[in-house]
Amino acid sequence: MTPVDTMAELGAVAGTARLYTADEPLELVGGGRLEVVDVAYETYGTLNSTGSNALFICHALTGDAHAAGQRIGDRRPGWWDNLIGPGKAVDTDRWYVVCANILGGCRGTTGPSSINPATGQAYGLDFPLLDMADFVTVHRRLARHLGVERWAVLLGGSLGGMQVLQWALSHPDEVDNAILIASSSRLTAENIAFSAVGRQAIMRDPEFCNGRFSDAGTSPDRGLSVARMMAHITYLSEKAFSEKFGRAAQSGTLAPGFGIDFAVESYLEHQGESFLTRFDALSYLYLTRVMDYFDPFAAPDALDALRADPVKFLVMSFDSDWRFATSQSRRIVQHLEHAGLPTAFREINSPWGHDSFLLALPAYHATIQAFLDRAFDEVRG
Amino acid sequence: MTPVDTMAELGAVAGTARLYTADEPLELVGGGRLEVVDVAYETYGTLNSTGSNALFICHALTGDAHAAGQRIGDRRPGWWDNLIGPGKAVDTDRWYVVCANILGGCRGTTGPSSINPATGQAYGLDFPLLDMADFVTVHRRLARHLGVERWAVLLGGSLGGMQVLQWALSHPDEVDNAILIASSSRLTAENIAFSAVGRQAIMRDPEFCNGRFSDAGTSPDRGLSVARMMAHITYLSEKAFSEKFGRAAQSGTLAPGFGIDFAVESYLEHQGESFLTRFDALSYLYLTRVMDYFDPFAAPDALDALRADPVKFLVMSFDSDWRFATSQSRRIVQHLEHAGLPTAFREINSPWGHDSFLLALPAYHATIQAFLDRAFDEVRG
Repeated sequence: MTPVDTMAELGAVAGTARLYTADEPLELVGGGRLEVVDVAYETYGTLNSTGSNALFICHALTGDAHAAGQRIGDRRPGWWDNLIGPGKAVDTDRWYVVCANILGGCRGTTGPSSINPATGQAYGLDFPLLDMADFVTVHRRLARHLGVERWAVLLGGSLGGMQVLQWALSHPDEVDNAILIASSSRLTAENIAFSAVGRQAIMRDPEFCNGRFSDAGTSPDRGLSVARMMAHITYLSEKAFSEKFGRAAQSGTLAPGFGIDFAVESYLEHQGESFLTRFDALSYLYLTRVMDYFDPFAAPDALDALRADPVKFLVMSFDSDWRFATSQSRRIVQHLEHAGLPTAFREINSPWGHDSFLLALPAYHATIQAFLDRAFDEVRG
Repeated sequence: MTPVDTMAELGAVAGTARLYTADEPLELVGGGRLEVVDVAYETYGTLNSTGSNALFICHALTGDAHAAGQRIGDRRPGWWDNLIGPGKAVDTDRWYVVCANILGGCRGTTGPSSINPATGQAYGLDFPLLDMADFVTVHRRLARHLGVERWAVLLGGSLGGMQVLQWALSHPDEVDNAILIASSSRLTAENIAFSAVGRQAIMRDPEFCNGRFSDAGTSPDRGLSVARMMAHITYLSEKAFSEKFGRAAQSGTLAPGFGIDFAVESYLEHQGESFLTRFDALSYLYLTRVMDYFDPFAAPDALDALRADPVKFLVMSFDSDWRFATSQSRRIVQHLEHAGLPTAFREINSPWGHDSFLLALPAYHATIQAFLDRAFDEVRG
């Protein structure tokens, strides 16, 4: 397949906005403060004259602003290109779609490996601790920058779904509809355990240098790739591993030894190595930790704002997802329904585990599309 | 509880036997050869005059010969002390129980961190690759050393169950009964994936020094503890983690940061650290790799010997074990039943995951006891 420039076809705009400056710094929920915050974003389609067709995509842990389209020369399109585009479930002929890299990330938005203007060096572990609400604050500022006053739809999977939930809980007056996919309102002990071991692999890497690795000219690649390999196992189902790899040899027949021999080993090795080209060890620490602490329904008044300004929810899960299991989506639904909020829930049958949310599964995309069709009718109505 | 010396009460004997020497080296299935092999073992109870009451315990990946009893001053009894002892399910008043550390281990039996007599240095990665059948070969030699000609029962969990299966398949004429618990005849791709990432954590540790860490005066502690922490997550069920830890703070209330904060993090940290005091990085590589390659039923003649000399099998699994799931035990049962062999199968209800096999669950121990009661009646009959 020859790469084509679908960015033009999408009416795509890519940019980086400086949203917070020393004059107007960002005060964080945890008490820290950032003097400068840049945000990388992409938009697809056109905001209509009434500003009623804006749809925000919240990306997952290792995602970025490049959700859709393919630039000439790129090996791959955006990470959710199967969902977003003209005539697709998220139809860019209808919706003005915005996706932005998250605060603390490493794909254009300010994060712990960005340069601290106060020191001229990377922040490292001096970067302040983040909260899910900080992600929302920054993306709300981006909305104002883009001239969006109201989101017809927020849409996100995994960590992205958590951000959607936070946004809908704290600013429901700016949101009409919210779609949460393979997400959670509160990680389980097992979830936290997996993330904790990944962080240990990174922090114990001698090249982590207590977070000062870029100053030291080192890079905790070993730790980060081990963390990614381990996490990746949890993003697929046991059945997916069996069907994709089974006990097949990587080349010809099995040749016992400690090198890469089984095909599944080669796959994980590739996942670990390719991750190094696009992700940063410090962002991995900061973003996973935000997920660990996220527990919005623990606040007794969590649903008060939503009760006053109801948002329509669609919550989805995949039956083979054991990392963010259906039970975690059901828990969100129970809280929302307890507050009397309109909530649709759908568990999709899929053998592929947590990463199903990135796949073009017909029942999955059809469910999103039907929800968006109704939302779009209301926009026009 | 004051530690008491239950070793005497068990009629326990602990020892190390030199079973292979330069005059009579061990030839390995994979083509390698060991000039000297020592085996650490313990025995409990007394071999009767006809030698008909011998019961061998095969230990799991990180187990050792100290299966039962407690020495004065020891913090803990043997790893299967809740199962083995006078009046217990494995009744040492009836059975002569033997447990020995596995070839390639690090708890008294020759392994990759033992001294190579040819060089005076640790073998490291020069240690030959091992096969499940090599474990059996060495323990059969130990049997002769102890005067045991025939095993009334072989009993093992996890890797131990895999060894029991290999033993019963290759030498059924020396075995009457075999009990396999939470075991497998063939690891899944996901199983291999978890072990592969653990090995990567070890081998990528700069202190691994290509396996020459003891010569180098280093120790790949970071990698080994990360491997252990990750593996330990897979030994418990999600429910077990939730019930034991939930989202509780380690001390008082949660205090966001990158240190140990959640109780589950403290638990994993402890698992990783305490593992370093009792296990060796090279043994971890060698033993997990034997498990990866184990696939005895792949041989067309695998069951021929067993058909000629039937062994009575009891195969058990735990419903919450997702590492060595019930489906893996059922697969063993299907192969055995296809060969017309007497096989009992029991899935035990337990919320604790793979590590259930180490717990004193009444239905679990009662099932073993009933099987052994029948076996003992046949010994006497």
